[in-house]
Amino acid sequence: MATRTRSISVASLFGRKIKGVILDITGVLKEGGSNGGTAVANSIEALNRLQDSGLAIRFCTNETTVTRSTLVDILRKLGFTIDEKKVFPPIPAMCCILRERNLRPHLLVHPDALPDFDGIDQTDPNCVIIGDATHQFSYENMNKAFQCLMKLEKPILFALGKGKYYQEDGELVLDVGPFLKALEYATDVRAEIVGKPSPSFYKTVLLDMGLDPSEVVMVGDDIVGDVGGAQSCGMAGVLVRTGKFRKQDENHPDVKPDAIMDNLAQFVDKLLSHALS
Amino acid sequence: MATRTRSISVASLFGRKIKGVILDITGVLKEGGSNGGTAVANSIEALNRLQDSGLAIRFCTNETTVTRSTLVDILRKLGFTIDEKKVFPPIPAMCCILRERNLRPHLLVHPDALPDFDGIDQTDPNCVIIGDATHQFSYENMNKAFQCLMKLEKPILFALGKGKYYQEDGELVLDVGPFLKALEYATDVRAEIVGKPSPSFYKTVLLDMGLDPSEVVMVGDDIVGDVGGAQSCGMAGVLVRTGKFRKQDENHPDVKPDAIMDNLAQFVDKLLSHALS
Repeated sequence: MATRTRSISVASLFGRKIKGVILDITGVLKEGGSNGGTAVANSIEALNRLQDSGLAIRFCTNETTVTRSTLVDILRKLGFTIDEKKVFPPIPAMCCILRERNLRPHLLVHPDALPDFDGIDQTDPNCVIIGDATHQFSYENMNKAFQCLMKLEKPILFALGKGKYYQEDGELVLDVGPFLKALEYATDVRAEIVGKPSPSFYKTVLLDMGLDPSEVVMVGDDIVGDVGGAQSCGMAGVLVRTGKFRKQDENHPDVKPDAIMDNLAQFVDKLLSHALS
Repeated sequence: MATRTRSISVASLFGRKIKGVILDITGVLKEGGSNGGTAVANSIEALNRLQDSGLAIRFCTNETTVTRSTLVDILRKLGFTIDEKKVFPPIPAMCCILRERNLRPHLLVHPDALPDFDGIDQTDPNCVIIGDATHQFSYENMNKAFQCLMKLEKPILFALGKGKYYQEDGELVLDVGPFLKALEYATDVRAEIVGKPSPSFYKTVLLDMGLDPSEVVMVGDDIVGDVGGAQSCGMAGVLVRTGKFRKQDENHPDVKPDAIMDNLAQFVDKLLSHALS
């Protein structure tokens, strides 16, 4: 049963006082698809209620196949109300790191995400960045990234997330993680992860919310990257049975979610029914 | 200085009585190249002397981009004298395993190696085999292998070797190992390795030689797969500075070769100069 939305700033859940929610996007708000995907049932209305509640909301995604602004456009076209400033994908965080450390990347990323690297010097690369390049993960492109790393005296490899797979058009497809592992194995270089479940990535989002991790719950369809990653940072982690969720995720050997919900709407119902003020 | 070849059955090396030699092919006999490659300097004459010596000789390769008979043809055209029955690549060993265990593979292998799978039932696959597929390592083909594994109740993954990279046309290129690691990570399935450095693969060769591992020396350009793999089985392991050899291999953190030689010819000189009979 849906609960009427009230203006609250704290909800009680899992014995915690929750002041903020971080939402994964693909698999929680929408199902992935080659044409932008489709909204998960009741998720548009659920997000509206959540955003109206007074709780702090952020969107934390490992999406790197489109720019941030395109991602927001896709969500708006599906019917979601969403503020671009509240969306945290890996590439903007990656660009901050490149500038701080004076690094010039060789990019193995999706062509549609390239505009988010505008202004980044890519001449004479001294590091490699691998994102969810999908069909750009050819043998030729994998070799180019590998050869770039092998030529560097101090090879640096960044990965935009380390997800194993996701669901697209009803089918499981490989994410960036497997290709990152391929390059790590070939080069004996350990990648730095930018994106979930990197603690520094989550901390950036928490800092923007102005909240302590104990006050925040993360909702995602990735048992390891979303739920486990959030829990490692001190947040609560909720798994939803949408997106790439598979039955065996409920008995994952390493990660025990604080709760498992059928979908975002059921989570919002539960959270808002425990409003404290 | 070359030693005159005599008919010997034992040589003394590394404090052992050596009765047999296992040679890697690419990087030892020949350098890799898209047109079959080129013979390593003096390796044709060195192999002739070795085969004339009376010692037992076998060729142990992870080559899976051509059939065994094509590989032997390539070597003969380069000038090598070689008996196909003495060449041990992974695919014939793999086919024995498939028959023994009633397995029907989904193949992610090089098209030119497919004839070595003739007669193997590939309908309704219940395992996946990954070889050095080179340009067939597309995102699409990696997804097909991944999806096949994810649909199996008891997923079985075989890898024809686990090499990291090799040298082709003067350039380092990715071998099967990185793509095997990608599938392992995506599916949480541990691959069974068929080929070097699998002990059971080396044991098949030793059985064919009728020798104890302590009586055999393996010569290769892969510090881990050739040298380390052979040593793990109780053989001596010699690294050559040809093929994919890199300076840092001389100080590998885990593997210490019994000897490092400039090339096969230098190894044969040394071995035959220590003939005991």
